Formats: sequence, structure tokens, C-alpha cells
Amino acid sequence: MPYTRTVRIDMPHSEAIEVVRKAFADQGFGVITEIDMSATLEAKIGAQMEPYVILGACNPQLAHRAVQVDSSIGALLPCNVVVRTEGGETIVDALDPAVMSQMSDDPALGEVAEEAGRRIDAALQTLRDQSA
Amino acid sequence: MPYTRTVRIDMPHSEAIEVVRKAFADQGFGVITEIDMSATLEAKIGAQMEPYVILGACNPQLAHRAVQVDSSIGALLPCNVVVRTEGGETIVDALDPAVMSQMSDDPALGEVAEEAGRRIDAALQTLRDQSA
Repeated sequence: MPYTRTVRIDMPHSEAIEVVRKAFADQGFGVITEIDMSATLEAKIGAQMEPYVILGACNPQLAHRAVQVDSSIGALLPCNVVVRTEGGETIVDALDPAVMSQMSDDPALGEVAEEAGRRIDAALQTLRDQSA
Repeated sequence: MPYTRTVRIDMPHSEAIEVVRKAFADQGFGVITEIDMSATLEAKIGAQMEPYVILGACNPQLAHRAVQVDSSIGALLPCNVVVRTEGGETIVDALDPAVMSQMSDDPALGEVAEEAGRRIDAALQTLRDQSA
């Protein structure tokens, strides 16, 4: 099953990170973590990778609702957004919040995931529009 | 389906965070992010929660193997370990890496998830032993 919602955007990686931050901020998601995975893996084990950054995007209202419904759900938070390069192309993979609702039977978590999904789709659409 | 591997440990929350870091470090996982979710949600929306911290644990070799198999897998990395309090009890929820292998048909990802799972189980067993 697909577990990310993905767009390919026509801009350099470093510029894409700032544009992704802005698009998610406009949907109420602050970026609360940023992991430069390619730099980390190069430093730790000498791995050579194309640029690969994981942004942790958190919408506080939605995160709080999710934790109230399922106190373990932090294991899937924040919503990760990967900004990476593949063959010169910049790709953005946002974790599909449907993954969360699949993990739990509580319909209230499904509602939170649906709202998160709508906002993530809007952010990704903004990226597509800016890339066009 | 359960998506975390969970232990309850008999120690205060702040002490538990250090003990969890050590137990995961002994299994090759460095903590590369730490989100104080209860403090963040109180600051952003005034939410009152019991202590709730999300540690992002990364084993560089396993992370690198996972990304080589499935370049989108960073959306589920690092392996989150929630350290929280519920009714005075300290609870540790580690994301079950089987979630990753369920998302992909590639058997190589299943092997990485199995090894990660063995190491996470060993870390959680250390916590149980220290709590006993």
C-alpha cells in the first residue's frame, strides 16, 4: 500500500526545503524537527547519498486530538515530510496520515487523520502550483 | 493491529528518558531528535498534558539499508520512542518496525525491520530488567 503522498517539484533541493516549510506552515503545520539524513549517514558510516532531509511537521491542534484519542500515537508523530533528490529531480514524500487511522479502530482518530490529509494535500498542491 | 512495542517502567519520567537513551544506544541507535510534545502543545495551544516526550532513535546502518531499498521510507524514520506518563506510571512505546515492512512488498525491507525489531526488543528488555 502507498504510505506517502508524493510530489515531484521542479526546484533545487535547498530551495525546496524552504518552500515546503512555507507550504506546510500555511496549513498550520510547524516544522519542529529537521534531520539531514544524508549528512548524518555520511558522518556516521561514510554513506554517500543524494540530498535527503526529513522535516517533522506538527499541527498542534491535530496532534493534541490524536494523542487524546490514542496515547501511543506519538510513535507516528510528527508527520514526516521527506525532501530528497533522485537523479537530479526533487521529490517530496509526506507520510500519509491514513497510516495512523489504519493502526487504530477508533473512528475519532480517522477524523483527525482525514483533516490532516486534507491539509497535507493542500500543501502539496501549493508545491505543484509553484513548480509548474 | 498493535503498532508499538510497549513497556511500563518503574522510574520517574525524567530519569526514564536518560535510561531509554542509554538502552537504545547500546543497541546502536543514537537519539537524533527529542520532541517535548507536552511542552510544545502547552506553548502552542495551552494544552495541559502529562509529560510526553518523543525520542527519534536512528541506527545508521539499518536506516541506510532501509533507504536503499525504499527511498520513501524516511517518512517512517527515525524510529520513534515515546516516553510518557499515564496516571503516575511511566510508559515507553517504541514504533514497531514491522509497520515499515507492512508498507512495502520488498523482502529486503522486511529483513531490515526484523533486525531493528530484535534490537528494539533487546533495548526494551534492558528497561524491564532495570525496572524490576
